[in-house]
Amino acid sequence: MASTAGKVIKCRAAVAWEAGKPLVVQEVEVAPPQAMEVRLKILYTSLCHTDVYFWEAKGQTPVFPRILGHEAAGIVESVGEGVTELAPGDHVLPVFTGECKECAHCKSEESNMCELLRINPDREVMIGDGQARFSVNGQPIYHFLGTSTFSEYTVVHSGCVAKINPEAPLDKVCVLSCGFCTGFGATVNVAKPKKGSTVAIFGLGAVGLAAAEGARVAGASRIIGVDLNSNRFETAKKFGCTEFVNPLEHTKPVQEVLAEMTNGGVDRAVECTGNINAMIQALESVHDGWGVAVLVGVPHKDAEFKTHPIHFLNEKTLKGTFYGHYKPRTDLPVVVEQYLKGELELEKFITHSVPFSEINKAFELMLAGQGLRCIIHMDG
Amino acid sequence: MASTAGKVIKCRAAVAWEAGKPLVVQEVEVAPPQAMEVRLKILYTSLCHTDVYFWEAKGQTPVFPRILGHEAAGIVESVGEGVTELAPGDHVLPVFTGECKECAHCKSEESNMCELLRINPDREVMIGDGQARFSVNGQPIYHFLGTSTFSEYTVVHSGCVAKINPEAPLDKVCVLSCGFCTGFGATVNVAKPKKGSTVAIFGLGAVGLAAAEGARVAGASRIIGVDLNSNRFETAKKFGCTEFVNPLEHTKPVQEVLAEMTNGGVDRAVECTGNINAMIQALESVHDGWGVAVLVGVPHKDAEFKTHPIHFLNEKTLKGTFYGHYKPRTDLPVVVEQYLKGELELEKFITHSVPFSEINKAFELMLAGQGLRCIIHMDG
Repeated sequence: MASTAGKVIKCRAAVAWEAGKPLVVQEVEVAPPQAMEVRLKILYTSLCHTDVYFWEAKGQTPVFPRILGHEAAGIVESVGEGVTELAPGDHVLPVFTGECKECAHCKSEESNMCELLRINPDREVMIGDGQARFSVNGQPIYHFLGTSTFSEYTVVHSGCVAKINPEAPLDKVCVLSCGFCTGFGATVNVAKPKKGSTVAIFGLGAVGLAAAEGARVAGASRIIGVDLNSNRFETAKKFGCTEFVNPLEHTKPVQEVLAEMTNGGVDRAVECTGNINAMIQALESVHDGWGVAVLVGVPHKDAEFKTHPIHFLNEKTLKGTFYGHYKPRTDLPVVVEQYLKGELELEKFITHSVPFSEINKAFELMLAGQGLRCIIHMDG
Repeated sequence: MASTAGKVIKCRAAVAWEAGKPLVVQEVEVAPPQAMEVRLKILYTSLCHTDVYFWEAKGQTPVFPRILGHEAAGIVESVGEGVTELAPGDHVLPVFTGECKECAHCKSEESNMCELLRINPDREVMIGDGQARFSVNGQPIYHFLGTSTFSEYTVVHSGCVAKINPEAPLDKVCVLSCGFCTGFGATVNVAKPKKGSTVAIFGLGAVGLAAAEGARVAGASRIIGVDLNSNRFETAKKFGCTEFVNPLEHTKPVQEVLAEMTNGGVDRAVECTGNINAMIQALESVHDGWGVAVLVGVPHKDAEFKTHPIHFLNEKTLKGTFYGHYKPRTDLPVVVEQYLKGELELEKFITHSVPFSEINKAFELMLAGQGLRCIIHMDG
């Protein structure tokens, strides 16, 4: 056990004190892990849109002060009571959702929506005792998505931690703990395009590009990117997109444009925007008889999905997925091995890096629509 | 070849001359089969709701005079030019949809919606030459669903004819050519419930009971029938239903009733009414993480399917199916073998029989909601 085990650790964290205000990198206290928890030393974290949404707190419950961050990689510093599958020194990816391995979802081959540890963005404390492990001068600082990786040390439920091959470069595989897997898994685990098939990807942000990458790896021969921003098309080619449709450049609905391009519809569509109209378009764009549309983007809470049921009677399938249907503890170590074997090209997603002391620059880049992933080096 | 080959056959048919008026059993002339067509001697036919809908012609394009009927069994009398897979004497089931074996749908493992021979209730003539093969005193009598089995002889496209084991009793297997397969296939081919799972069936008519039978054969341990008519529950028990819900007897929405009965939702739901509210309820009734809802009932042309997309994001799947995803020529002979091996209990569906001369009694029984299937004996 590390010499810090069982003790409070003082370290740097980037605290969000107010909605939309720059994070403050400052010293915080991190309490030791309690039963079934682990304390992690975070080495790399990256910024995802979800962090920005909860930092802006528009349309989300404002929870402050809070330590954001959920896409990261690190090393186990110490473990709490009852933790048997993780030990200090293990290389790990913390994940915003978990796998208790006991509930009906964990026991089902089809679900990754663990009943105990399912994502809950409103939860601001540890589930074990309802307390925060972070504090500043005795004031609790709240958790985010059970991960709070914008801190040199963080405490996470052991069911939300994937133990990975220690040879994996943590500054690359950190992107697996959210965006990449969400998009890539939606295609390879859920849409499952066949070799030679045609796939439409709605939304060419990081998740959509990961979905396109999934189609490329699966051997799709036509990958049609759909986005309102034509500037994204050049980058999308690197992720396998072969054709592009900007709905703003057509008078016909995009469903019809895609049907004409593909003799009746695409074989698979993956929706990565969360826009309700794009969701409906995705379903209506797939071919009757065999088409499958997969929803990935998170919709507005009042959104309503409306379509004529004939699309279903004509043998189209509509599915959705959460975190690409990956079970964090079971599947992430396998994805890391795929990367180590050269099957996945994570480097393409990493366009920027900043030292931790300059974490607010990562926010500025994302708000300016610059790049895909900015890796934050915790030692800087 | 039979001595009638190549000649016009005079025989009895039940002609629908006007919407909603009793059929007239009278002599008609049946022209010989043209290229890729076959002429069948029908031995048994049964009455399905779809015949009644088009006979009533409310909300359907009225096409008269017409020979209805599409659930039947018979023997090939003669074949037209180019027909190589069928010969006089073959025992067959004519089907309202076809399988050309050449189009993208027929070549896909996932679809049974043949591009050439897909169901088309508005088509009133043969696709080869746009003519009717039936006539009375030179006046053409129109076809229905490409089958028109309410006639001692009929002409059908060879792609809509399944050749079956001649040992199969035609007065039983005739129900496979529509209702049974539609419901049974929806469960076993599309919903695919696992052994020990919980299945809800919306609508306990013949198709819904066949869907329940599919759940029973698949080994579901709880089969919950949902119907507005509680009188149907007693019969449904014979088809595997273990529990019943009449939505009219609850103040809560049926989704909530089912969720409470099943700790969060059923594993599979099969919708056999065509009512848009029941379709939405079916989706919303399945369990998150792994639930699959399958739509079978044909909706109103203006129906709109509306739901919150969170159901999909929570990993529910919505599918639809047409004819239970069976490919008529490839799959029906296999289903007949299943029946011959005792795996399917078709007898339970057959509650009445009438001689052909009394075919209007079958209509009366159906309009009165009596029984499930009435077999019409063509020799009577």
